[in-house]
Amino acid sequence: MKPYVVGVDIGGTNTVFGIVDARGAVIASSSIKTLKHNNVGDFIDELHQGITQLMEQNDAVGKVAGIGIGAPNANYYTGMIEKLVNIPWPTPLPLARMVSEKFGIPVAITNDANAAAIGEMTYGAARGMKNFIMITLGTGVGSGIVINGQMVYGHDGFAGELGHVIMKRNNGRLCGCGRTGCLEAYCSATGVARTAREFLETRTDPSVLRDLPVEQITSKDVYDAAVGGDKLAKEIFEYTGNILGEAFADFTVFSSPEAIILFGGLAKSGDLLLKPLKESMEKNMMPMFKGKVKVLISELKEADAAVLGASALGWEAK
Amino acid sequence: MKPYVVGVDIGGTNTVFGIVDARGAVIASSSIKTLKHNNVGDFIDELHQGITQLMEQNDAVGKVAGIGIGAPNANYYTGMIEKLVNIPWPTPLPLARMVSEKFGIPVAITNDANAAAIGEMTYGAARGMKNFIMITLGTGVGSGIVINGQMVYGHDGFAGELGHVIMKRNNGRLCGCGRTGCLEAYCSATGVARTAREFLETRTDPSVLRDLPVEQITSKDVYDAAVGGDKLAKEIFEYTGNILGEAFADFTVFSSPEAIILFGGLAKSGDLLLKPLKESMEKNMMPMFKGKVKVLISELKEADAAVLGASALGWEAK
Repeated sequence: MKPYVVGVDIGGTNTVFGIVDARGAVIASSSIKTLKHNNVGDFIDELHQGITQLMEQNDAVGKVAGIGIGAPNANYYTGMIEKLVNIPWPTPLPLARMVSEKFGIPVAITNDANAAAIGEMTYGAARGMKNFIMITLGTGVGSGIVINGQMVYGHDGFAGELGHVIMKRNNGRLCGCGRTGCLEAYCSATGVARTAREFLETRTDPSVLRDLPVEQITSKDVYDAAVGGDKLAKEIFEYTGNILGEAFADFTVFSSPEAIILFGGLAKSGDLLLKPLKESMEKNMMPMFKGKVKVLISELKEADAAVLGASALGWEAK
Repeated sequence: MKPYVVGVDIGGTNTVFGIVDARGAVIASSSIKTLKHNNVGDFIDELHQGITQLMEQNDAVGKVAGIGIGAPNANYYTGMIEKLVNIPWPTPLPLARMVSEKFGIPVAITNDANAAAIGEMTYGAARGMKNFIMITLGTGVGSGIVINGQMVYGHDGFAGELGHVIMKRNNGRLCGCGRTGCLEAYCSATGVARTAREFLETRTDPSVLRDLPVEQITSKDVYDAAVGGDKLAKEIFEYTGNILGEAFADFTVFSSPEAIILFGGLAKSGDLLLKPLKESMEKNMMPMFKGKVKVLISELKEADAAVLGASALGWEAK
């Protein structure tokens, strides 16, 4: 059996790639600018060049079992990217086939949140778990669901959009998906910033956040203020954790996971987020599931996580 | 390979059992009173007697591959009934082991909604489907979820309690599970009757339902009134369908099923329920899933469904 896989994470700005061994060590990694090329063919050429160079430098030529790619709206079943928002390549894009033809190596693709879940199951906090849910708290709220040890892709390959369950059925915030009240509109980094603006507008109590230009407040600003003891900033985290906990209780009646694992920037907020989240989850939990579901933080190193997650998919590429 | 399985459905009143062949034909069936015996040992003795008699009459002795049992709160993993509400047997009850020892035949158990889903996948509307959700609209709202062709039991064996997602986060109705706002409190047969009482109390428009003693109104009364053209009764179905549609849109972002299949008394309400349900589901659906998810009615004959569903589990009993 070939000893390596290659993981590729295609982001809106950078595309990171690396060679990974069976134990999850990133042997070598590098990156290119995703948007340097308007033409996807040129992008694949540069990716090929970069990965080939890495393979040559690390004696990995001919030793790569598969390439796994994490990309927005990527469909595991079809190998296609169905839609791109900030990248000007034509869609649907048969990316798996194109990359596979270029490299002569099997390629599997999935969306970034699913890749993170596969990485966590293969190398991280979910090792040995057959039933868990990965929630990525970044610009949006993404998710990857594992049931019976398998990724849940659903009938069309797009299952696991848990950022888009409706948490507020009345007067909910507009979401990027076009509907209102989605989890993502409240509990992403962007959602936290929106909550900050909402709280600052509708309340009158003092906060260091009032010293910042209101339209430019980020979740990082809220975090810093909360760490510094700012009461309003802490309440923003309580509000966020409370909604996440309500959502997690609903997720539990669906798949009864052993754990829900948090990943992404907001997941590093520590007890500011985790304490209200866990309290709300248990308070809202159906009695038969109370005390059963762990909330864990990803154990993958942030810098490696995207590549590791995608690479794990490389082992099952055919 | 042995040509038959036995299905047993343990209900609060009757326990129905039957011999089923590989094509899903119920060769013979019978029933006993579940509550005739306070002692579960006596119950199993009578069940053994009844099933043995059926086997003898139908030349099936020695030809039964397995026994599948559907029972409330039955855990597929452990073979235990964890809790019983209206049946006075001690819990946790190792039913699978007890029945298996009595018969000398492998036994598998699961809850009734999961049994219905397995039956539908093996013999009914979900034949050939790898990803679907079965929703049973009876006294409560039960569910059985199939993903990648497998029943979803979750980490603890109790996954698929979709009747207990929260649909009303503020001022929701009290649910049997002890929380408020659950889907079941609105969209079960009982929920429909509660909606009727609520509408009759808070509104003043005329309805034939006002001729009935308000505490005794059933979902059947509401159905009959709606079929007869009663406007308020029709609106009760619209209200019910609307909430089911909202819930189904949320279920879709989780597992992206090919179909959601309705079973149970209310599922026979036809377009009174289905039309508002489908409209609401599509209206609330995340754009990427619009128009993709079928809403179907169970194809299992009501009288046979419970036994068929449980029997299908018999094929995988070990």
